[in-house]
Amino acid sequence: MRERVVVKFEPDGVKIEGRKGETVLDLIHKTGLSIRSECGGRQVCGKCRVIVGTPESCSEITQAEMFHLTKEEISHGYRLACACKILNDTVIIIPEESRIGVRSVLVEGVGKEVKLEPYVRKLLLFLDKPDLSDVRSDLQRIRDSLRETYNLDSAKFSFELLSRLPEVLRDSGWKVALTLWKDKIIDVEASDAIDEVYGVAVDIGTSKIIGYLTDLKSGKLLEVCFIENPQISYGEDVISRITYASENVENLRRLHKVLIEGINKVISRLCIKAKCRARNIYEVTVVGNTVMHHLFLSLSTKFLGLSPYVPVVSEPINVEARELSLKVNPSANVHVLPVIAGFVGADAVADIIATGIHKSDELSMVVDIGTNTEVILGNKESIMASSCASGPAFEGAHIKCGMKAVTGAIERLTIDPKTLEVTYKTIGGSPPVGLCGSAVIDCIAELFKAGIIDRGGRMMDQDIHGKIRIVDSDREFVLVRKGEDGAKRDIVITQRDVREIQLAKSAIYTGCYILMKRMKVRPEDVEKCYVAGAFGNYLNLTNAKLIGMLPDLSPDKIEFVGNAAGAGARMALVSKSVREEAAEAARKVKYVELALDPDFQLEFASAMYLPHRDVNRFPSLKDLV
Amino acid sequence: MRERVVVKFEPDGVKIEGRKGETVLDLIHKTGLSIRSECGGRQVCGKCRVIVGTPESCSEITQAEMFHLTKEEISHGYRLACACKILNDTVIIIPEESRIGVRSVLVEGVGKEVKLEPYVRKLLLFLDKPDLSDVRSDLQRIRDSLRETYNLDSAKFSFELLSRLPEVLRDSGWKVALTLWKDKIIDVEASDAIDEVYGVAVDIGTSKIIGYLTDLKSGKLLEVCFIENPQISYGEDVISRITYASENVENLRRLHKVLIEGINKVISRLCIKAKCRARNIYEVTVVGNTVMHHLFLSLSTKFLGLSPYVPVVSEPINVEARELSLKVNPSANVHVLPVIAGFVGADAVADIIATGIHKSDELSMVVDIGTNTEVILGNKESIMASSCASGPAFEGAHIKCGMKAVTGAIERLTIDPKTLEVTYKTIGGSPPVGLCGSAVIDCIAELFKAGIIDRGGRMMDQDIHGKIRIVDSDREFVLVRKGEDGAKRDIVITQRDVREIQLAKSAIYTGCYILMKRMKVRPEDVEKCYVAGAFGNYLNLTNAKLIGMLPDLSPDKIEFVGNAAGAGARMALVSKSVREEAAEAARKVKYVELALDPDFQLEFASAMYLPHRDVNRFPSLKDLV
Repeated sequence: MRERVVVKFEPDGVKIEGRKGETVLDLIHKTGLSIRSECGGRQVCGKCRVIVGTPESCSEITQAEMFHLTKEEISHGYRLACACKILNDTVIIIPEESRIGVRSVLVEGVGKEVKLEPYVRKLLLFLDKPDLSDVRSDLQRIRDSLRETYNLDSAKFSFELLSRLPEVLRDSGWKVALTLWKDKIIDVEASDAIDEVYGVAVDIGTSKIIGYLTDLKSGKLLEVCFIENPQISYGEDVISRITYASENVENLRRLHKVLIEGINKVISRLCIKAKCRARNIYEVTVVGNTVMHHLFLSLSTKFLGLSPYVPVVSEPINVEARELSLKVNPSANVHVLPVIAGFVGADAVADIIATGIHKSDELSMVVDIGTNTEVILGNKESIMASSCASGPAFEGAHIKCGMKAVTGAIERLTIDPKTLEVTYKTIGGSPPVGLCGSAVIDCIAELFKAGIIDRGGRMMDQDIHGKIRIVDSDREFVLVRKGEDGAKRDIVITQRDVREIQLAKSAIYTGCYILMKRMKVRPEDVEKCYVAGAFGNYLNLTNAKLIGMLPDLSPDKIEFVGNAAGAGARMALVSKSVREEAAEAARKVKYVELALDPDFQLEFASAMYLPHRDVNRFPSLKDLV
Repeated sequence: MRERVVVKFEPDGVKIEGRKGETVLDLIHKTGLSIRSECGGRQVCGKCRVIVGTPESCSEITQAEMFHLTKEEISHGYRLACACKILNDTVIIIPEESRIGVRSVLVEGVGKEVKLEPYVRKLLLFLDKPDLSDVRSDLQRIRDSLRETYNLDSAKFSFELLSRLPEVLRDSGWKVALTLWKDKIIDVEASDAIDEVYGVAVDIGTSKIIGYLTDLKSGKLLEVCFIENPQISYGEDVISRITYASENVENLRRLHKVLIEGINKVISRLCIKAKCRARNIYEVTVVGNTVMHHLFLSLSTKFLGLSPYVPVVSEPINVEARELSLKVNPSANVHVLPVIAGFVGADAVADIIATGIHKSDELSMVVDIGTNTEVILGNKESIMASSCASGPAFEGAHIKCGMKAVTGAIERLTIDPKTLEVTYKTIGGSPPVGLCGSAVIDCIAELFKAGIIDRGGRMMDQDIHGKIRIVDSDREFVLVRKGEDGAKRDIVITQRDVREIQLAKSAIYTGCYILMKRMKVRPEDVEKCYVAGAFGNYLNLTNAKLIGMLPDLSPDKIEFVGNAAGAGARMALVSKSVREEAAEAARKVKYVELALDPDFQLEFASAMYLPHRDVNRFPSLKDLV
């Protein structure tokens, strides 16, 4: 009795060898073809209808099939793929009604749907064993089988793979799972690894590295993990890292190395959490500002720090993982998204992709707040971008009680204008430890509304309700007292903190303003404003406007989208089209150098006020101010 | 006064920037366009005629030009490129009559002409310096200039290059020599490196590694160098190396490593001899038998030693030099010629290419004698190939006084049948040291003719003229006595040596015979027989036939072609078309496994006789025998 059967699926023309008795559904899954199967193959939904060429090659009609199919359908060879077992070679037609429409993945945060179309896929191959009448080379055998089974011709291959080929083929009994990136063979394993296809999107921030582990078969996000960027010990902002890296080539290599080690740590944690093997990660997408981009690729950042601030390379880069010592499959493709200019990087490109402004009719603005804040303005016609040195205040640095948006951080607060009583919420509901960026913004806005700080940012000098005091010759407002709700220390906001925020928000506002000026649009022309950044899950946009961080836009136009750069990297991970869009968008965007604008100095100084020296710029706040 | 001029060459449409006062010939050379200039630019030959668009942009007409050009030609703007200096921007036409026909390179040894069309070329680029109004990335700047100057689009680039890019561009003052392999940028240097374009062809023999350093601009062979294959300490023949490499992966890595080190030694010597830098070697072609091929690529040889003797890969391989740690430019392309089967390697493919039998109407045979001897038979219609384990006797090993074909080796000798007086010639005319392969063949043939050894290979047991004696219980014939012509020892040929040669020649003859049988052709149908091998410059083909190493072919059909595999590697180095032909030929050749032929055992035993047990196989020798 024959144990193996060959089934050909039409109209795709895909052939596969299976075990006698396997269901049609199992075989379809192995080929990588798609079929509806809402119940997961339990003969319940009746969606996986197929037509068998030779009904006598199949098992008997089941009760479930009698229920789901009409007599006439059965007489025409209709079966349910999950019920029908193959006993002999046959041809099977998968009709249009049973096919899955294009699969989409929802990217959380930005809420965008993206078509699942990764460059990586795994295919099952059953190879003929060589004998003296068939002495084709191992690689040729694979090529021939790829052509016969999947109609794939002239597949390239990763050189590194060849050395493992002979053992894998023989140990697996000539049944292998082949991994392709585009048309390049990058891995060969025993066939039981067929479903292990993963990818990681990496967002390299100046202060944080975030990794997103994704199942490339389903597009599902499996795990997220982040660590502090270990480069921080060589400088807090990009300028100090450029300075360090420019001293000598060893310093550059060191910054590159600690970054790669950091990313490897993130990847290793993701794999442990998701219980998957790093060698089954076949694609990595990377975003980051231009300095992070260059340090990741071990490229000199020296000329990013010198006028005219020219990057070494701006286009998207594809490079094998082993060239960068990333601990994933050595032949995995690392796709680094394109950069726009010396100070507008791949993170800005990812912002564009994630918010979709490059495809939108609406004039949209993106403000991605970080140590460097990218401001992007435009629509599908044209886009301008610039970068402002806003400093790390919104990420909790340079703020006396500042901290990152992690457990224990106060993420939102209100201050009663009469009693000055403070109400707040911490991340995870834990005892308060400090203030993350969103709380700092709330704080300034609430104190401004309560009249504790004036338009110039000056904190009043008389104490009210025992809340204002002077410590280390700096005035400060006490938000939470030590012991209150389990606080281990007084949590305060200082005069110096307010100044820090004023500088930061002024930089951002000036960026928005100059971009609008250059595009010759007024605030009311901006139809949509996306605010992104590492604020955790929350940002009070009214308060952000109140302190003058954003132009005076109607609240329904402003949307907080969290880590848009990370979302963009994840979209690029699962979609070819998104990468093409990103490359196209990066080429199209016009970079605006803010410091070269004649109005820059004056604008920056005027924007230091709360919300602005010129109240007419904020008509909606006129009554309040 | 402007110091730079822009010249556009028509009809090619190539633009180049030059210094004011440079000659048109200099500029043409820089673009990479070709023009006749037999005298090398000394205004003597009058061949470099060009037509200038604006004669007023050029220097005055010289005396030489008045001599070589008619008044009418001068009035139409004709000039000599070597005499005409450019003072201002202009367009220059290079007429058809001044163009060089396709350049050909003569490959010594096989005497084949091959069109010079390497994959590697260097181009001169003068880039715009970036400023705040032009902040294109370094790479983009190069891409744009390549397109504008040379009409080259979408050039790929070697990732490794990017890290050096910023410094090279700025240190060279934005004037660079760009190296392309196909359409991939593999090197960027200051412009004065424009002429340094080298390649190395490597022939990896089981016992010898030979390197050929070639100038890829002219196709000229600059230096040849060889060393003993350092793998020899791990086994003399391929089988023992397979055995060693199959023990564990460390052994495989070791054989790979010593081979690479050996090749690097050859390359380093070539560079010292030719005074060129290894980093200007941009292409390496490699041939060798399948075991050498696999060890070079660090591929498992285990299954080459086990039936059905399947190679890991047979097609041609292109891989960057740094992946193999070859000490040439790290982004240089290493092209490994294809193999045919487990025991018919890239050296056989190179033999085919070098002898041109794949393009010939004539039924041709190639016998490439080495430790493994490849026998190839066919013409442009079809080709069969097989491999015989002939052992290293013809390379001087396993022969009492044997040695390689180097200075001091006796390379030819005759023995007077009456007096048994020996006349000989050594390589380099030095005192005799030993016998190389060609002399061993002469020896056996001459002793056979003199009746000292019989058809069965037995040496007569009575002494004649004091020439035959017994030493260490082995009979031997004294060819040169110690002291004679400065010989430091007696040079002899022993009974055991004769047996060794009988085994070797029988293996080769059997290969030729079975291939002819399979192709259903008789000796008289073979129109051409190329004999290749490491015999130095000389091989007495009549003697080779007399001992029965080759079938009985008329002497004018047999040609000794020296190291044909090396010649094939050199042809592939300078020519794209040759590589395509090689790939095509490798696919086409049918491999014949000799040991599977039912006649093999009997044939082998019969061919042990001198020239053969069946004298009818050698009708031309009937009288002699």
